[in-house]
Amino acid sequence: MNQDAGAGAAHLYFLEQLYRAAVEAVRPEACMPAFLPAPPKGRTVVVGAGKAAASMARVVERHWRGPLSGLVVTRHGHSLPCERIEVVEAGHPVPDSQGLDGARRMLEAVSGLTADDLVLCLISGGGSSLLTLPAPGLTLADKQKISRALLHSGADITEMNTVRKHLSAIKGGRLAIAAAPAPVLTLVLSDVTGDDPSVVGSGPTVADPSRCGDALAVLEKYRIDAPEPVRRLLLQGKTETPKPGDPGLKHAAVRLIASGRTALDAAARLASQRGYDVLCLGDAITGESREVAKVHAGIARYAVAGGTPLRRPGVLLSGGETTVTVTGKGRGGRNAEFLLALAIELDGAPGVYALAADTDGIDGTEDNAGCLLAPQALSAGRAAGIDARLALASNDGYGFFEAIGALLVTGPTLTNVNDFRAILLAPD
Amino acid sequence: MNQDAGAGAAHLYFLEQLYRAAVEAVRPEACMPAFLPAPPKGRTVVVGAGKAAASMARVVERHWRGPLSGLVVTRHGHSLPCERIEVVEAGHPVPDSQGLDGARRMLEAVSGLTADDLVLCLISGGGSSLLTLPAPGLTLADKQKISRALLHSGADITEMNTVRKHLSAIKGGRLAIAAAPAPVLTLVLSDVTGDDPSVVGSGPTVADPSRCGDALAVLEKYRIDAPEPVRRLLLQGKTETPKPGDPGLKHAAVRLIASGRTALDAAARLASQRGYDVLCLGDAITGESREVAKVHAGIARYAVAGGTPLRRPGVLLSGGETTVTVTGKGRGGRNAEFLLALAIELDGAPGVYALAADTDGIDGTEDNAGCLLAPQALSAGRAAGIDARLALASNDGYGFFEAIGALLVTGPTLTNVNDFRAILLAPD
Repeated sequence: MNQDAGAGAAHLYFLEQLYRAAVEAVRPEACMPAFLPAPPKGRTVVVGAGKAAASMARVVERHWRGPLSGLVVTRHGHSLPCERIEVVEAGHPVPDSQGLDGARRMLEAVSGLTADDLVLCLISGGGSSLLTLPAPGLTLADKQKISRALLHSGADITEMNTVRKHLSAIKGGRLAIAAAPAPVLTLVLSDVTGDDPSVVGSGPTVADPSRCGDALAVLEKYRIDAPEPVRRLLLQGKTETPKPGDPGLKHAAVRLIASGRTALDAAARLASQRGYDVLCLGDAITGESREVAKVHAGIARYAVAGGTPLRRPGVLLSGGETTVTVTGKGRGGRNAEFLLALAIELDGAPGVYALAADTDGIDGTEDNAGCLLAPQALSAGRAAGIDARLALASNDGYGFFEAIGALLVTGPTLTNVNDFRAILLAPD
Repeated sequence: MNQDAGAGAAHLYFLEQLYRAAVEAVRPEACMPAFLPAPPKGRTVVVGAGKAAASMARVVERHWRGPLSGLVVTRHGHSLPCERIEVVEAGHPVPDSQGLDGARRMLEAVSGLTADDLVLCLISGGGSSLLTLPAPGLTLADKQKISRALLHSGADITEMNTVRKHLSAIKGGRLAIAAAPAPVLTLVLSDVTGDDPSVVGSGPTVADPSRCGDALAVLEKYRIDAPEPVRRLLLQGKTETPKPGDPGLKHAAVRLIASGRTALDAAARLASQRGYDVLCLGDAITGESREVAKVHAGIARYAVAGGTPLRRPGVLLSGGETTVTVTGKGRGGRNAEFLLALAIELDGAPGVYALAADTDGIDGTEDNAGCLLAPQALSAGRAAGIDARLALASNDGYGFFEAIGALLVTGPTLTNVNDFRAILLAPD
């Protein structure tokens, strides 16, 4: 039994169109060319990391007049062939030796430049894991252990990166310092709420306001059992990052080329053009996925009952990055967890459809971008022998939506501005 | 150090005005007279329970032409002198012997009536705890134990009442059955999301769609260690309630006289009149308080950054009922917890002020209706020697806002449509 049988299929199809419009608007081909500077007198070295690194590098190659060299690190499966810029594939979300090797070579590539040269740094979400170079005294295994613990802790991205930056020899502005005196221009495709460039990809070229003590506080808050060398390093304060105003970063500039807002605005435009009322809650939504789902369900229920702020037919949009505190053994990312909790909250409310997906095309560590929800999802689940509440209790959003044939699979989109959620209220 | 020193005082004052406008709109004096029926040929017996029971009874007395008798149960401190209807004060949120006695006498008062008589039943939030009559085989102590466990479990109001209705001799439609053949008109002041009359005050005159098995599932979900007689009763299914369509409830009708939406609409009107842009998320917001706060903070941050859906100056409104899973030993209700989490999330964002309060004038079991938040709250807390994050970790919202002089104290308002939240974005 498929949940989208019948008239609902058109609504689910339209939600997919909204998602695709959102992703299209933040692809580097669409949003990046306008931000490319004039070539320098000397050499141009391209570096960078993130799930969009290869597609950003290719846009540079296509639009750049003059010589280019360099390398970028992207996630396995997010690569694209480039001609002059080397693309290295590495592990995500847990760093691996390819990421380590890429980071080392990146530091080499930007050293020995002059003030006539230019370093173009292409940063997108995922860069934190992909670009890994343990601070002196740490091993890759230490960083892998911390990464895994952070990923399962419920810590948000700013908290995770506060830790990562203080355990790294390349993050938190250190790459820019290595490039001096060459000017550094960083182009940022933001996947973090608030679009703070010191957080995206752990800001390898950006001053870092956080301190070793903040990193320790995160470990404490989430009761993370850090390897002894990690704790010692942070306690000694030996891995402090350059702070805002540091003269050692005068040569570095940053531009935001797109963010979750760019994606939401594109979806909102399309929905408006098709005659839907639109309420966009913005790209700064955080919180535990299943609780965020309750708030979204509440807004939808109120709208269905005739309350403001959304008329039918209408679309409720939101972005940002929710968190999942994993307690069960199921599969699935933030978006599957959100949508499963939403299904339970809406409890089959007629005329309410939804999509939740990561704009990078990968929800968590699975093969789907996200999932689709129709009113009959819970009964479809029962027919397939899977109970939604039990699935949620074991964090098995993927299992649930797979069982009812409602996974959204796109493959890597080669861009990344974090989550995209849309709830459609069908006409009365 | 007071957090509202300076220009912010006017913003906090305006938030209080919004709250007062919201409460005023749902006072029985304002919203109830239009729903009173014509007097019957025979007797009129008034019964009811809830935090607004006394003020609702007084409105009946003031507007009723003809003889009246009966009794209503309200919370200690929520009483008002009435002339013909007896007002009984009882314990809330944990039931006590006064509530038990009131419930017994209420069943007596509606028995022996004829089809020419009328039972007017006045139900408002809190009625579930106030009106307590253990099912045969249970004691008041059993019900008190279950009540306490449910209150600390994180269960929402529908879940709590599903349990309560199956352990009661008066809830879940049983009061109406006892009144037959006299017609029963129930006037409901709703404090529950969705305004389901079978949930408000555990619906003593309303058919109940939930089953004993659902009650057991709630106990299971929240791992509540129920007394053995409770579990046995539910397992045997002996306390099943009358279901929708039950002919034994043909004589009972229900009218919703006001809800959270009424209150939010009044605040929205006032804010609009004063030139504020308004976004109302509705009265159906649920979820863990601190996570709901993150979503509200995210919307506010997006609006401050110039995103839709709210322009400055603007007011973000929401109602509903959040939950607090208590793990610490601090003081404070849902609204204090929400506002403390909001303060941490906003982290002093300039120009953002907020109020969160229960429309009944009592946040949880404290003496305050809620609290007020200005951008300098966190620093005011530090100056007063209280750290916001530590306070939140111990569920000590009351302690925090008390320390910075930001409690909102109104006393019981004698009405109740649940929580009221307003976030004000000051002009640029």
